[in-house]
Amino acid sequence: MDWRDVFADRMDLLGDTAVIELLKLAERPDVLSFAGGLPDAATFPMEAMKEVAVQVFDTHGSMSLQYGPTAGYTALREWIAHRMGPVEGVTAGVDDILVTTGGIEAMDLIAKTLLNPGDIVIVEAPTYLTAFSVFRCYDVEFVAVDIDDEGMRVDLLEERLGELERRGKRAKLIYTMPTFQNPGGVTMPQERRRKLVGLADRHNIPILEDHAYAELYFDHPPPPSLKALNPDGVLFVSTFSKIFGPGIRLGWIAAPPAVVNQLCQAKLGSDQCSSTLGQRIVYEYGRQGLMDSQIVLSRALYQAKRNVTLEALAEHAPPGMTWTRPDGGFYVWLTTPEGIDSTAMLAWAVENEKVAYVAGPSFYTDGRGANQFRLCYSFLDQSLIGEGISRVCRSVAHHVERRHRARIGA
Amino acid sequence: MDWRDVFADRMDLLGDTAVIELLKLAERPDVLSFAGGLPDAATFPMEAMKEVAVQVFDTHGSMSLQYGPTAGYTALREWIAHRMGPVEGVTAGVDDILVTTGGIEAMDLIAKTLLNPGDIVIVEAPTYLTAFSVFRCYDVEFVAVDIDDEGMRVDLLEERLGELERRGKRAKLIYTMPTFQNPGGVTMPQERRRKLVGLADRHNIPILEDHAYAELYFDHPPPPSLKALNPDGVLFVSTFSKIFGPGIRLGWIAAPPAVVNQLCQAKLGSDQCSSTLGQRIVYEYGRQGLMDSQIVLSRALYQAKRNVTLEALAEHAPPGMTWTRPDGGFYVWLTTPEGIDSTAMLAWAVENEKVAYVAGPSFYTDGRGANQFRLCYSFLDQSLIGEGISRVCRSVAHHVERRHRARIGA
Repeated sequence: MDWRDVFADRMDLLGDTAVIELLKLAERPDVLSFAGGLPDAATFPMEAMKEVAVQVFDTHGSMSLQYGPTAGYTALREWIAHRMGPVEGVTAGVDDILVTTGGIEAMDLIAKTLLNPGDIVIVEAPTYLTAFSVFRCYDVEFVAVDIDDEGMRVDLLEERLGELERRGKRAKLIYTMPTFQNPGGVTMPQERRRKLVGLADRHNIPILEDHAYAELYFDHPPPPSLKALNPDGVLFVSTFSKIFGPGIRLGWIAAPPAVVNQLCQAKLGSDQCSSTLGQRIVYEYGRQGLMDSQIVLSRALYQAKRNVTLEALAEHAPPGMTWTRPDGGFYVWLTTPEGIDSTAMLAWAVENEKVAYVAGPSFYTDGRGANQFRLCYSFLDQSLIGEGISRVCRSVAHHVERRHRARIGA
Repeated sequence: MDWRDVFADRMDLLGDTAVIELLKLAERPDVLSFAGGLPDAATFPMEAMKEVAVQVFDTHGSMSLQYGPTAGYTALREWIAHRMGPVEGVTAGVDDILVTTGGIEAMDLIAKTLLNPGDIVIVEAPTYLTAFSVFRCYDVEFVAVDIDDEGMRVDLLEERLGELERRGKRAKLIYTMPTFQNPGGVTMPQERRRKLVGLADRHNIPILEDHAYAELYFDHPPPPSLKALNPDGVLFVSTFSKIFGPGIRLGWIAAPPAVVNQLCQAKLGSDQCSSTLGQRIVYEYGRQGLMDSQIVLSRALYQAKRNVTLEALAEHAPPGMTWTRPDGGFYVWLTTPEGIDSTAMLAWAVENEKVAYVAGPSFYTDGRGANQFRLCYSFLDQSLIGEGISRVCRSVAHHVERRHRARIGA
């Protein structure tokens, strides 16, 4: 069997194996890794989770091992819908909710349901790198809109939509993470959110709002979600990966019921239904208030890690390096002086300083970001963050110095 | 937001909501349902599963709630690979195995990895109905090959491949369930298996072998899998849904490592990784020999149900009705006298006899199967099967009689 000629064309678009490699790198015990966006396992209350799992076996019995409805375990959907009121300011009913096998499946189902080959998807620049793995499978065209310290620049978005209109085209979907953006660590203020949903609504373009980190805020809650501002025009995606644990592989979509019906059709051919056992564990855990307690502790833990990260950067950063200051979530986005190649620097940093991050170009559609990179402060033990940051900063300083010497011909 | 114009073209191909409706029907307490292909919950040893889950929490700790590798939990992949020797006669290493979120995701990943729009997929007629939900998302063309009591007719397959060749086309994938076929209940003998893998190999067409039911044999084991006959040319898909429980949502693919690498790329954009908690539970459960014990008991239970089903059919079937005699798995496939519409009859049977099955046309690409239907004997309580079968037979007899009266103008 000659397998080389057999693969589908879309596989040529999936060359970037960054995430797979990252997860491997994160496993190397000698490297302090700021690479993979993993939650801190200290946020998983294992004893409480075990007790809930035992309750599920004892009280739900064999139903927890049987097939379940494609849209999700009804009691969990009801609980999610109800919780979106107080937590998100979103009024949702059970028919608005689809349970998914994590946030990635949620995005994949939306892509499958909406996107034809050649369709235009608006993404942020930089954006969540695994979003490329999702959308590229559907052979779409990306239009990237830069972010600043307040998230996606809606003025640039308006320009892009105008340009598309003049070319007789229109965007099919706007993908945005307005709160504690990955990788930017930035958050869109309320006024810009209003402009964004208004603009999308005038152009009749659905918004995929990625809400993965929004519950993990620090000093104060973020502004209302886009979904709260325009319930009918926003497909809201969130995940239990950061507020329970990624190993349970569950997330959800809040969308108008007509869209949920189509998403169910798509899900039937993706995995039929999400884990019944997992859904019942999350339901019991959430219903008993344990998730809300976990979130409170998680916020404090990640806030402390954010603080250590920013303090260490202030202390060790070489001149000319800048970074964002996240109010929640997992990420700081750094920009080095011009002329530094963050990809080449990464290999050097892993080898010489035993520290890892994700180089900037992985987050762009067009190869930009050479002098940028992402640090994830959520996973590394808090006592190691300071040392890790000093290693990162030494790596940058070394490359700035090397570049300086090369310039002056030394 | 006007959602009507927004959906992708592929959604028009997913009109058949049969499975979603079936799962609802199966929940109606007043109907004896032979419809959904659900395992009997009596095969789930809940106490043993609970103990294993507790062990996982206690000994694997927080790793069981963290992200895992995209290809699967390495120890589980090793265990699956090792087990394929004695159970399937297949020599496999860890690099040959990808853990998936159930059998459907396994098929979806293979489709995503191999199929371009317009590609030709060979399917059996009739075939597993959810396979349509998978493949239709990739806008493929189906070529159906009839089955007989020995599975896919390889003589007809050879004809079809020849016809395609004369049209300058070739098939991209052959999808087959050679053992205890769904819905046929039939099994391909060894000699025909050899012919099938030889024919596929000569044409350089990969085979997707769906092995979902093969471990649930009755009097004697089935012939070796197609994978055992041609390891390099067969993508072997199986699931823990029938030998552990569907609620865990786990399955696997055994394929050449070069294909597994591509499948990992596809999986990254489908759900990133399968449930770590679920994988560790299945691993510990399997490693301790509990799955093999469960399978032995499951075989006995389903054999008893098969026996009751066949005895009741022999007793109650109206003249002219024929059916298959499965040596394993969950299904009997019935053919009524000509002129009966199994779809119309289903509505009548649910209403008047409080019994359900799946009508034949759902299993065909081309609307055939009007006088055929599938009975699943796995789920219904054994004490109710005889009564259920007598209701099915009364429904058929009623429609035969009605048609007879219509013909003679009575």
